[in-house]
Amino acid sequence: MSPAELLPRVLAAETRAIARAMRMVDDRLPGGLDLLKGLFPHTGKAWILGVTGNPGAGKSTLVDQLIAGFRAKGLRVGVVAVDPTSPYTGGAILGDRIRMARHATDDGVFIRSLATRGHLGGLSHSARDVVRVLDAAGFDVVLVETVGVGQDELEITRTAHTTLVVMAPGMGDEVQAIKAGILECADVFAVNKADRDGADATVRDLELMIALGNESIRALSRTRGHATHTARDAHVAGDGGGDRDGRWTPPIVTCVATRGEGVGGLVDALERHRAWVVGTEAGRARRKARLAEEVREGLREALIDAAVHDLGARIDEALAAVEARRVDPYTATEDLVRAFRGGAS
Amino acid sequence: MSPAELLPRVLAAETRAIARAMRMVDDRLPGGLDLLKGLFPHTGKAWILGVTGNPGAGKSTLVDQLIAGFRAKGLRVGVVAVDPTSPYTGGAILGDRIRMARHATDDGVFIRSLATRGHLGGLSHSARDVVRVLDAAGFDVVLVETVGVGQDELEITRTAHTTLVVMAPGMGDEVQAIKAGILECADVFAVNKADRDGADATVRDLELMIALGNESIRALSRTRGHATHTARDAHVAGDGGGDRDGRWTPPIVTCVATRGEGVGGLVDALERHRAWVVGTEAGRARRKARLAEEVREGLREALIDAAVHDLGARIDEALAAVEARRVDPYTATEDLVRAFRGGAS
Repeated sequence: MSPAELLPRVLAAETRAIARAMRMVDDRLPGGLDLLKGLFPHTGKAWILGVTGNPGAGKSTLVDQLIAGFRAKGLRVGVVAVDPTSPYTGGAILGDRIRMARHATDDGVFIRSLATRGHLGGLSHSARDVVRVLDAAGFDVVLVETVGVGQDELEITRTAHTTLVVMAPGMGDEVQAIKAGILECADVFAVNKADRDGADATVRDLELMIALGNESIRALSRTRGHATHTARDAHVAGDGGGDRDGRWTPPIVTCVATRGEGVGGLVDALERHRAWVVGTEAGRARRKARLAEEVREGLREALIDAAVHDLGARIDEALAAVEARRVDPYTATEDLVRAFRGGAS
Repeated sequence: MSPAELLPRVLAAETRAIARAMRMVDDRLPGGLDLLKGLFPHTGKAWILGVTGNPGAGKSTLVDQLIAGFRAKGLRVGVVAVDPTSPYTGGAILGDRIRMARHATDDGVFIRSLATRGHLGGLSHSARDVVRVLDAAGFDVVLVETVGVGQDELEITRTAHTTLVVMAPGMGDEVQAIKAGILECADVFAVNKADRDGADATVRDLELMIALGNESIRALSRTRGHATHTARDAHVAGDGGGDRDGRWTPPIVTCVATRGEGVGGLVDALERHRAWVVGTEAGRARRKARLAEEVREGLREALIDAAVHDLGARIDEALAAVEARRVDPYTATEDLVRAFRGGAS
């Protein structure tokens, strides 16, 4: 089927057409790019919800519950499960997918796994494009679930409007995970398995971390001469939400996904964030910044592709010269850029 | 001091000149690039040894012991400690540096911390350039120590000839760390704090993981029609070393860094890997591949810089058009690349 034939069927949300479009896009098949171009004007309506957190935190079970929660509200739900781990461990996440099988016969739910390509930029790229297919097909919510909380996963969740970080007590690595940049990307925290020992401690750690983060931001604002804030402005971390300066403080929601406890509250917290993204200047600025980031990222990739195409053997020659230390890598790079700019072919 | 004045002083290993050169390079001060170009022909002699592993594994103490071990052999040792964690947690690693203070008065040791720039590519770039200053200044070994085992840290250790991954028993996240791509980058594993409970289990987990990794590689070779292997070819994971096909199996060395136990064996294992890198075709191919990666990476950065310079406002116009959904991001990118190729200015 050509992209032109496929396009209206995707827009009509035909399941097989969606699956085919995703494969075309994900495998970078010919026509995939044309299809994406055609789909783009029909995108921008879905709420893209990233779900990340350490393996073992119960993400899959929680995603399963979130699907049910959104379905109960009559929303159509797409799920993209991304596994950027080593090829040696491939397959583990596919087992998790089985847990979501109960939605398999529901036309209002579409689940797709993206396996690693061994290429970082490529994976977040693929995830974004696959999400776009679901967006154009009219899914109201698209959940993007990642396996862990590495740098690559954080990059993928950056494409989301709302990022949910799932934690569980007693995993010993919560604080490390936060250190690794989680706080900057989390819009809502879920402390899952909240019936276990240590759940309170995990919540307290998170509250402290969020409060410190906010203090840091306030301290920065002060030194930069922005509006200053008093203690009264500070939200209790556990409540979260948007403040009058347009900043969002991540709420912390406790839940027990296996029993469905707390999932309603979690859906509420997520929807409050959605309202903040859509309804405030700060939220709109963030969406804009992420689209800008995509274009710049795409430009970066396209430029290197074009340079490799145009310069061809010149790149290999430069590499050989650097290897022999006849040329330094800095000069070699400058020469290659100059040649490309000059329209080498 | 100009780069031309600084250059001979760096080559003569004057401590203050090295510090100044590093600042020039790391802060991207004017002249830093000229300096790097001048230094490059004098580089390529140092052994670059990456040290990574989860926080709490005892990396700093072990690095301290490794410095002493190499110094005892009369080698001059440089250390670059890289902290790519969130700005909110800044400062933690600086405390660790204090442990290395005992080498402060030793001219044969130079220690430098690199803090985060909030920019991933930038940090590994900076680390590589700072290492090059130490290389040109004649340091025999340059240790590049990272805080954690995230994707960014793995990227930094890719610039090393030999990568040491430090683990400790009972941290609960060893296996996760391995999953995150550690196995592909580790040349030697150290299980530190080996006097603690669970050390044997950590070693066994690693052995299994390495054996599985090798099996996967063998399976791949078979399906691709390469030489097949019998069980007799397999090395016991714990021993490690190079095999007759030029593959390196990471040895696992147990140690107790706080008491200096096992450090001699670790130095031996690291030196065996160095000999493999220098002495085998596979090792040389790896060094070559990493230099090629650097040039490609540099080209990627230089291209986007040049495009931003040449295209200027056109990029902003494209962004506004995409945001308004008048143009899709794929077409916008193609148009920008075409304009740049055509020599827009």
